[in-house]
Amino acid sequence: MLTLFHQPLCPHSRFIRLILGEYGLEARLVEERFWDRRDQFLILNPAGTLPVLIDEGQPPVPGAAIIAEYLDETRGQAEPLLPRDPGERVEVRRLASWFNDKFHAEVSGPLTTERIFKRYMTAEQGGGPPDTDAIRVARHNIRYHLAYLGWLVRTRNYLAGDRMSFADLAAAAHLSVADYLGDVPWSEDDAAKNWYARVKSRPSFRPLLTDTLAGVAPATHYANLDF
Amino acid sequence: MLTLFHQPLCPHSRFIRLILGEYGLEARLVEERFWDRRDQFLILNPAGTLPVLIDEGQPPVPGAAIIAEYLDETRGQAEPLLPRDPGERVEVRRLASWFNDKFHAEVSGPLTTERIFKRYMTAEQGGGPPDTDAIRVARHNIRYHLAYLGWLVRTRNYLAGDRMSFADLAAAAHLSVADYLGDVPWSEDDAAKNWYARVKSRPSFRPLLTDTLAGVAPATHYANLDF
Repeated sequence: MLTLFHQPLCPHSRFIRLILGEYGLEARLVEERFWDRRDQFLILNPAGTLPVLIDEGQPPVPGAAIIAEYLDETRGQAEPLLPRDPGERVEVRRLASWFNDKFHAEVSGPLTTERIFKRYMTAEQGGGPPDTDAIRVARHNIRYHLAYLGWLVRTRNYLAGDRMSFADLAAAAHLSVADYLGDVPWSEDDAAKNWYARVKSRPSFRPLLTDTLAGVAPATHYANLDF
Repeated sequence: MLTLFHQPLCPHSRFIRLILGEYGLEARLVEERFWDRRDQFLILNPAGTLPVLIDEGQPPVPGAAIIAEYLDETRGQAEPLLPRDPGERVEVRRLASWFNDKFHAEVSGPLTTERIFKRYMTAEQGGGPPDTDAIRVARHNIRYHLAYLGWLVRTRNYLAGDRMSFADLAAAAHLSVADYLGDVPWSEDDAAKNWYARVKSRPSFRPLLTDTLAGVAPATHYANLDF
């Protein structure tokens, strides 16, 4: 039995939910208010971050990249989302890290912190009104990432090569959160938009499209497969 | 033939140099002034960060964690620094990420940026006098990391278990940069200090101890194995 500690609009958690869906794995989802820094949660992951996967009989698996590697090693034999060739693995990991680390630092991290998580935090936890400068910078940055993504998928079937991989799921997970908030300028890049429409129409994506947050309505086109 | 684009006091580059040393691999070292954002370097790694490993006939391998996985997969068969058991791999990757990501964000990143790299950058590149607040916060943060490291090695032979692994090399690489700058309060934790003395005395560490930077002399005890 798998359990995933997550937040519905945490992009790293969504990346893992997509992997679970693609591998056909059921997991119990537990919403963790990570900003509360619960003692029992810090025992599972001393870093205090999401997501954390629990696979009974194994140590807790913390962090998007580490969970992805773990699921590939223990559940990914039939249809791997990480290729077997060392050079191809580099490209998948490079682009997964691009979105999990760089895009998160420049776009999806500031957007989720300022527009979502700060609503739930106390002042001591860092809550309060959103920093509009941080949001403005994130909305500026996303345009460069969208252009890079479009440039990649104009020459490749999927982000890191011929087949769908962790790279596509990481990119789509982070974009999906910005899209929920209406912060993706899709009209700027048709190739990126078409790639996202393909990933978004996969069955693994459906649970993400029904997530809603009290007080933060999704953009009108968010759940629309033909946006 | 391997080539590593690096900076002598970049902790992520040092992590890879330690792995190369432990695996007995020779690599040509090329100093990259990453803040110049050279076009030819951005072709190797569009993210513009260090380190980058070139293994002829393969795509460039960017980033400390991705290079470590690549070297394990292609060169680590005899004496793996990443164990073979999935649960043990989680703990090694968790702690390697702790130092490559969390310790870097809270300690070694601010220290190297403020005390070293900003000396070489132009004003447009972000250069200038060090931000003394950032340095003060980093010196405050390192104490918690040192206590956590000491707590781990009081119950384990090495950081992630019985055997030396990527976790030890990542931790030692990041600490070595803070140690060069005289910013590690070793007297606060004997267990951490003893662990570091063991890793520091390995042959793979020797090249790091002879690195010196014009204008930034190492702490007097830096190269001393009995510090």
